[in-house]
Amino acid sequence: MKAIVLGGSSGIGRAIAESLRTIDCDVIAASRKDIDTSNLASVKRFIKKHKETDILVLNTGGPVPKQFSQVTEKDWQKYHNQLFLGFCILLQKLKVRNGGYIFAITSGVIREPNPRLVISSAYRLAFTAVFKLASKDLSSKNISCVNIAPGPINTDRMRELVGDLDEFAKSLPMRRVGEPREIGDFVAAIVKNRIKYLSGVTINFDGANSNFVL
Amino acid sequence: MKAIVLGGSSGIGRAIAESLRTIDCDVIAASRKDIDTSNLASVKRFIKKHKETDILVLNTGGPVPKQFSQVTEKDWQKYHNQLFLGFCILLQKLKVRNGGYIFAITSGVIREPNPRLVISSAYRLAFTAVFKLASKDLSSKNISCVNIAPGPINTDRMRELVGDLDEFAKSLPMRRVGEPREIGDFVAAIVKNRIKYLSGVTINFDGANSNFVL
Amino acid sequence: MKAIVLGGSSGIGRAIAESLRTIDCDVIAASRKDIDTSNLASVKRFIKKHKETDILVLNTGGPVPKQFSQVTEKDWQKYHNQLFLGFCILLQKLKVRNGGYIFAITSGVIREPNPRLVISSAYRLAFTAVFKLASKDLSSKNISCVNIAPGPINTDRMRELVGDLDEFAKSLPMRRVGEPREIGDFVAAIVKNRIKYLSGVTINFDGANSNFVL
Amino acid sequence: MKAIVLGGSSGIGRAIAESLRTIDCDVIAASRKDIDTSNLASVKRFIKKHKETDILVLNTGGPVPKQFSQVTEKDWQKYHNQLFLGFCILLQKLKVRNGGYIFAITSGVIREPNPRLVISSAYRLAFTAVFKLASKDLSSKNISCVNIAPGPINTDRMRELVGDLDEFAKSLPMRRVGEPREIGDFVAAIVKNRIKYLSGVTINFDGANSNFVL
Repeated sequence: MKAIVLGGSSGIGRAIAESLRTIDCDVIAASRKDIDTSNLASVKRFIKKHKETDILVLNTGGPVPKQFSQVTEKDWQKYHNQLFLGFCILLQKLKVRNGGYIFAITSGVIREPNPRLVISSAYRLAFTAVFKLASKDLSSKNISCVNIAPGPINTDRMRELVGDLDEFAKSLPMRRVGEPREIGDFVAAIVKNRIKYLSGVTINFDGANSNFVL
Repeated sequence: MKAIVLGGSSGIGRAIAESLRTIDCDVIAASRKDIDTSNLASVKRFIKKHKETDILVLNTGGPVPKQFSQVTEKDWQKYHNQLFLGFCILLQKLKVRNGGYIFAITSGVIREPNPRLVISSAYRLAFTAVFKLASKDLSSKNISCVNIAPGPINTDRMRELVGDLDEFAKSLPMRRVGEPREIGDFVAAIVKNRIKYLSGVTINFDGANSNFVL
Repeated sequence: MKAIVLGGSSGIGRAIAESLRTIDCDVIAASRKDIDTSNLASVKRFIKKHKETDILVLNTGGPVPKQFSQVTEKDWQKYHNQLFLGFCILLQKLKVRNGGYIFAITSGVIREPNPRLVISSAYRLAFTAVFKLASKDLSSKNISCVNIAPGPINTDRMRELVGDLDEFAKSLPMRRVGEPREIGDFVAAIVKNRIKYLSGVTINFDGANSNFVL
Repeated sequence: MKAIVLGGSSGIGRAIAESLRTIDCDVIAASRKDIDTSNLASVKRFIKKHKETDILVLNTGGPVPKQFSQVTEKDWQKYHNQLFLGFCILLQKLKVRNGGYIFAITSGVIREPNPRLVISSAYRLAFTAVFKLASKDLSSKNISCVNIAPGPINTDRMRELVGDLDEFAKSLPMRRVGEPREIGDFVAAIVKNRIKYLSGVTINFDGANSNFVL
């Protein structure tokens, strides 16, 4: 199977690419050079080049932390593209073959919005609504759509957000952050086992760290 | 108290304006001529002109129904402004006085996204995240933020969406759509009774029509 | 209109009873002597005595805080009656007249379960499911069902839970706990203004203190 | 690893037992003869006999469909044990070894309560709150707790609920019900891949059939 993993050069994206390779997927781990979802022209070039796939992983980094009062119009516009509109265009125009999978890697902030991550909280949540609706449409092609909302994971991004990761980890239920590989292996396991009926769902992946009941 | 009601010339907005007048608010019922939230320059002119208020009602109509596959980049951009970014700028720059209220009139589609209303489902939900975060910030000024998510209400919009309103009503638990006045009176009752601790909450207003548990 | 308020002798229940009296309801503020929902025989006697009402407020205190590991079978059984089954029997057998209202006073722990309040978190949430379903059934009689989930409110119960209320209040977004009167006035305002289309909804009443998006 | 699967003689439970065997777990597929969670004495005998495990799957059938108005006190009491209290006692007293897993198989009705399944909707949701809290406690032992909420799955139960399964399937997004094996393989894949950071989460498994956004 062919897989395209956006944001595939580091962090969670890279881990997913690596795990998919272990189950013999032919993986294109796209870096920002290959596709910059904040730039719609770049998104369209990417679609024209790659045309179709069996597995699509929608994944991208988030913005520098900012309080709501400091977010500029330019910030909104940029991340509207990066976290929402670029993904919508990919969903509309990059063909996923029948029986395929689409994974969206969003964030735990879609359920518990974070004041420093207001941009991500808003746009990743907006995309979650689109992705939920798309999951219904794509069901007729037996394409499964799974939204994974990571909590604290061991990435450069997390270090940027919390500073001392070891100190931060003590506050977590599992006394550690998650490993990107766990998400990668989770994604690969779903594909490998042909689990298709898992679709239209958002799965928090946070080591029991969130506080809402469901 | 001074109140600014956006989308105040018809439907739910007008009903809120009318109800607030009955409790002696000095109401500016802004029409699209006064402020068009899809046009950020118009939003900024409005802010410059009106400067501050005690009560702000963020309300605007939604787009023509469209399936996800048919939504164009231009549609996304326009309604990103109209349903999200214009409201964010108002939240950032229009001063709400201490002890005031902000009401956001969103839609039931923020919890149960609707395939024909994918644009509203996404951007109104994005704004819900911003509004939740803003409610925390604004608490220190004793400003209460209430998100009202209407279900089927007796407006021109609803007629446009469902066609025969009487026929549609038979499918609803209450055998009727809601009246705009009910939402108007609900808003006015909160203000009149100085109910301040109701903040940071999304209230579905749908006559028991939604199906999620909470 | 006739109103029956359970747990009406103190705290939120008393405040609701008082607010309903200001709008000329004929209020029965039932104390635990009148009805003890942990005792189903007491519930049935109460139903036999009072038969019907226009407004029913389902309200009762919660158990002493306990960690999950310490909850005994007897605790579960008692509070299953008090927080769930007694209310179910009231919903089934106490007649609420056409056009009436039922308010359930639950708790913010139904969305964000609290480790010290595991019993309340579970059974109040269970009742929320029943109440949601009942709201649909009762819509045909124009009876509105509103679930109010209070956050930190100025009651003896809250003092028991947090100790120093003033110190605790500093941690809250509004720098204060809510007043029972705010909930009382909210309930009375809904009734007085004949707001009927608000039904089947859970309204967190917590001064922007909760962290989930919706 | 040792696994105990309740309700393991048919349907989803049996499928989980079978999938776990393929990854070399030593599986006890308990039938109702072995443990009847509606009978607390039976639960305690089972605990005494089996003492501890690495993997525990909390799974049981639901009651015959009934409208709320028809549910008797005896029904509530029985299913309070079967769907809630028996599981709580197992969580409290059956030792799960460090690094283990607990899966709760609940139902899609915990998010979208079903009028014919009011008992399940209530008690399975109550257990979801307990399980969420337990997931935090158990994190310190590196035990992962995953709540799987199946939608329409190809079981005897589903046939009992909907009658003609083929006809019903046409109304579903995927035009089919899910297969028990998909859930079994999903559970086994999590265990086999040592995915531990997936904990404290409820995963709807419904082929894009549910309508809430998250």
